[in-house]
Amino acid sequence: MALEVFHKDETLQMRRKLIGQSCRLFFSHDPVKIMRARGQYLYDENGMQYLDCISNVQHVGHCHPSITQAAAAQMDLLYSNTRFLHDNIVLYANRLAATLPKKLCVFYFVNSGSEANDLALRLARQYTRHQDVIVLDYAYHGHLTSLIDISPYKFRKLEGQKEWVHVAPLPDTYHGIYREDHLDPGQAYADTVKSLIEEAHKKGRKISSFFAESLPSVGGQIIFPTGYCKRVAESVHEAGGVYVADEIQTGFGRVGSHFWAFQLQGEDFCPDIVTMGKPMGNGHPIACVATTEEIADAFTANGVEYFNTFGGNPVSCAIGLALLDVIEKEDLRGNAVRVGGHLKQLLLQLQIKHPLVGDVRGVGLFIGMEIVKDRVSRKPATEEAAHLVRRLKEERIVISTDGPWDSVIKFKPPMCFSIEDAERVSTCIDQILGVAKGAVPSIGMMLRPKPLPALVSDMRSLPSETANS
Amino acid sequence: MALEVFHKDETLQMRRKLIGQSCRLFFSHDPVKIMRARGQYLYDENGMQYLDCISNVQHVGHCHPSITQAAAAQMDLLYSNTRFLHDNIVLYANRLAATLPKKLCVFYFVNSGSEANDLALRLARQYTRHQDVIVLDYAYHGHLTSLIDISPYKFRKLEGQKEWVHVAPLPDTYHGIYREDHLDPGQAYADTVKSLIEEAHKKGRKISSFFAESLPSVGGQIIFPTGYCKRVAESVHEAGGVYVADEIQTGFGRVGSHFWAFQLQGEDFCPDIVTMGKPMGNGHPIACVATTEEIADAFTANGVEYFNTFGGNPVSCAIGLALLDVIEKEDLRGNAVRVGGHLKQLLLQLQIKHPLVGDVRGVGLFIGMEIVKDRVSRKPATEEAAHLVRRLKEERIVISTDGPWDSVIKFKPPMCFSIEDAERVSTCIDQILGVAKGAVPSIGMMLRPKPLPALVSDMRSLPSETANS
Repeated sequence: MALEVFHKDETLQMRRKLIGQSCRLFFSHDPVKIMRARGQYLYDENGMQYLDCISNVQHVGHCHPSITQAAAAQMDLLYSNTRFLHDNIVLYANRLAATLPKKLCVFYFVNSGSEANDLALRLARQYTRHQDVIVLDYAYHGHLTSLIDISPYKFRKLEGQKEWVHVAPLPDTYHGIYREDHLDPGQAYADTVKSLIEEAHKKGRKISSFFAESLPSVGGQIIFPTGYCKRVAESVHEAGGVYVADEIQTGFGRVGSHFWAFQLQGEDFCPDIVTMGKPMGNGHPIACVATTEEIADAFTANGVEYFNTFGGNPVSCAIGLALLDVIEKEDLRGNAVRVGGHLKQLLLQLQIKHPLVGDVRGVGLFIGMEIVKDRVSRKPATEEAAHLVRRLKEERIVISTDGPWDSVIKFKPPMCFSIEDAERVSTCIDQILGVAKGAVPSIGMMLRPKPLPALVSDMRSLPSETANS
Repeated sequence: MALEVFHKDETLQMRRKLIGQSCRLFFSHDPVKIMRARGQYLYDENGMQYLDCISNVQHVGHCHPSITQAAAAQMDLLYSNTRFLHDNIVLYANRLAATLPKKLCVFYFVNSGSEANDLALRLARQYTRHQDVIVLDYAYHGHLTSLIDISPYKFRKLEGQKEWVHVAPLPDTYHGIYREDHLDPGQAYADTVKSLIEEAHKKGRKISSFFAESLPSVGGQIIFPTGYCKRVAESVHEAGGVYVADEIQTGFGRVGSHFWAFQLQGEDFCPDIVTMGKPMGNGHPIACVATTEEIADAFTANGVEYFNTFGGNPVSCAIGLALLDVIEKEDLRGNAVRVGGHLKQLLLQLQIKHPLVGDVRGVGLFIGMEIVKDRVSRKPATEEAAHLVRRLKEERIVISTDGPWDSVIKFKPPMCFSIEDAERVSTCIDQILGVAKGAVPSIGMMLRPKPLPALVSDMRSLPSETANS
């Protein structure tokens, strides 16, 4: 598998024929063919190196040898299902339990964040005997039928909103109804959830759960205002529902200071269900639901087995355990604090310099930089953000956008991202934005700057299709 | 991971505390702790060997070195998502395409059979613009919210039948409404689906799809009567729906003569969507949906991306490719024909000898032996079947039951199952049933036979908990 089997054009042609076209490629007009990766670096078919700013799944770095070794060793011993007793699943659950508040002490292992959120929905409904779900605007919780229903980001483009789904405003203090100048945006946004519950009750509906990513990602790298989660949880509990914290993108130390992003909301807040996924296996399909004894007991009480063929198998758990070891041994949470903090500072300096940079927000290695037409209207600059992404790709930096208007440049790199990487990407952005310095940049002015001399040292060759882009 | 970390009792205690109790263990009163496995053999914490008759997931044999090597080599190179171009996904899709009728030429890679069936449901609905689904009685299509809705085996025990679900009789010629003495059970059972569609139409409902395993497994290792699928497909197409063949348990050559079980129905039958999963990765979480260009195009036309974080990654595809190689190199389909045929003959001989054996059915290494109270009433002998499973476990043979009454002893072993394995299990069953020979056996008569001298050669020690069972 090490060598290229097909020329890039042929791979692309076969992919267009054989793989459903709903499965999209990065940089669809000129996709990148990646052959190998290590740490935070990707290498294409010509050996060209790219800096990876977005692969949060490859949490401790692409192809970390400790993970590969743990997987191979366990694959040689046993790769069976969880109907047989095995130590790995209990060892792993025990290690995860140690990262969570005590009440989150029962675990279900599954294969993807989507499977985790679907199970969370089933748990919440079984426990509360209620059906309805409150979600945040622009949220995305997965690709399954049940999760598209609770993902405004998807259902708005598809079959629309179900009667059992209630959409609360995204607590976005940059674009939202309450902004950074509000005295207590946490309370104000939490009150919108309370009102939504009251409206639902008036219609005779009953709330099973409030679902939210602990830091909304697709929503635009949002940081919840202080006190928001705790107050929402109070209202939801009062309505007989449970709080589901979707930590699929944000867990496992990405925020640096804490292992879970919900812990940023203080020790007096604890969700009832936590779902985890993407970074858990460094690329390997593993995900998990953690919940309380009471909720697990209610699920058991229905008398129906929950069997997940691959979930919690000895190899997945060996990989999960190895990943936890690497996070600790390499102090990757500390690295997220240091490098994420430095990167945020660098981006804040760019904000001072470049009027296109409307907002910089984030914590640890979860950072968003919002590109706006101007800072007064805060009008999202979607095309300019897309252009920045394309230009960064030419500089061999892989990055992408998020948010309702795809105007937020998102950083969620492998956790081994270095100070030098942060400086490289910041310098590049500075130079790209600098081409249009002194004026609100137009796309025309930003097009086709000369290659940046300081940044081409790692470019051994320029593939023709890039030169033509 | 090679050594036991906890004593078995402690593992069990931790599991009861940490893992949701809806996740059940085999032999729950005395579960087996398996430390390693190879081929068709499992080894417990004392090194005791068990013959594995049911692990269809470990398709080419537990821990096949070719699979482990392919996984480790690719894990060392790249374990990224499918938004980057890569050869493995197109190589793998191309290889799968070669096993399928030409019209099934577009692939979506996912992580589990459940994810595959959920996506099949989305594809069918998007393409047909209809909502309703016809399923077979006792069917199980997965653990997700959407799939419990189309699994009578589950929804009967849970929230009940949705108005958009229509349940057709299981075409079981042993227990069903039309039996082996019917002149054309394929036509007769297909007519039940036609009637169901007519009834649904009268209620103003519209059929999106007919979902069925190509050989119903949980339903009791059922072999469809000749002509059934083709005629069902005709009625479903006439109603504007599509035929979804769930090959999650039955695909990848298990039936021996064909690569897919639906191919047993002849070349003039072709499903519109095929879902695959369990055996695909020999334990690794990988699954797939294959469909037609028309259906894939309709899904693309909604303009919404389908992104599956782990689905189709280079490691999963490398494993999938390695598995296809092993099936060919080791002629495992030929082995399924030979060993499955021999096993079925042996079980048919037991049927002549033992009145408890009501029916023996199957193809390749997918075989069911139904235990009945008596052959006239065909009343399922659930307790006797459970006892047989427990006794076989004492003889170090892992097997289990299926079917609406858990009265069908199911064989779906790794495909390297040998003639000697078949003879061992058949001899064991013969001796266990023989204890009660000459009479319709009662549980009392079957209890606690002496250990079988010919079968204890591989038992190095008897764990105390088994001796107490």
